[in-house]
Amino acid sequence: MPNSETTWSLDRRLAGDTVVIGELALSQALVMNDANYPWLILVPRVVGAVEIFDLDDQDQTDLMNETALLAGVLKDVTRCDKINVAAIGNVVAQLHVHIVARRQGDPAWPKPVWGAAPATPYAQAALDRFIASIRAEVAFG
Amino acid sequence: MPNSETTWSLDRRLAGDTVVIGELALSQALVMNDANYPWLILVPRVVGAVEIFDLDDQDQTDLMNETALLAGVLKDVTRCDKINVAAIGNVVAQLHVHIVARRQGDPAWPKPVWGAAPATPYAQAALDRFIASIRAEVAFG
Repeated sequence: MPNSETTWSLDRRLAGDTVVIGELALSQALVMNDANYPWLILVPRVVGAVEIFDLDDQDQTDLMNETALLAGVLKDVTRCDKINVAAIGNVVAQLHVHIVARRQGDPAWPKPVWGAAPATPYAQAALDRFIASIRAEVAFG
Repeated sequence: MPNSETTWSLDRRLAGDTVVIGELALSQALVMNDANYPWLILVPRVVGAVEIFDLDDQDQTDLMNETALLAGVLKDVTRCDKINVAAIGNVVAQLHVHIVARRQGDPAWPKPVWGAAPATPYAQAALDRFIASIRAEVAFG
């Protein structure tokens, strides 16, 4: 019978803060529901992975490819000043990679976004537009 | 004649905050001179690279390999609770990857380290010991 140790599932706290936008070869791609910054998250569908060195070499390569892909798309779509990429996981241990579009003058600039400002949920139409703009550029499975 | 556009050199602000510990295939490895957290930085020796998607595919793979290598060594050496990995670059644009050993109860836990506490320079003996512990586990060029 499947359980948390044999079947991958998205951490509940990540699920509560995000919307799924699609599946890549290794990872599930999410949008953080925070209109302060265009913010994607990649979560490798690997049971028990916490640190990047928990992934085997091929999965590490896939994670880098998927991170670079989404980072480039996010930069193109938002025309932001800088992309921030991070795997932190001090609160939610499940390995996940933040990919955040940063702009001079955004609520945290130039500091990192984590803990800087309370999340501001998107209006539905704005969220739909943002997700559509990403989906237009990425071949999700 | 070499100049800043054709020859790689370490950003001056990074150089001022760190000590070089060695060279890997792609990156220069640094120790942040902040005794609050065991903290390494990888800087790919690629002129003009700012975002990870500025690297070609092979360099992206090398950067992932080197990041995972140092992250694993840092975890082993420090027996920390979590490794934080990030490429932020809002202040220093030169592409660099932070690899930070985090422990419950450290000065920023569970928040990220950037901007959390003023850097506390190492005593020389402690810095030497930390660098030696990393060099003992990594084949630097």
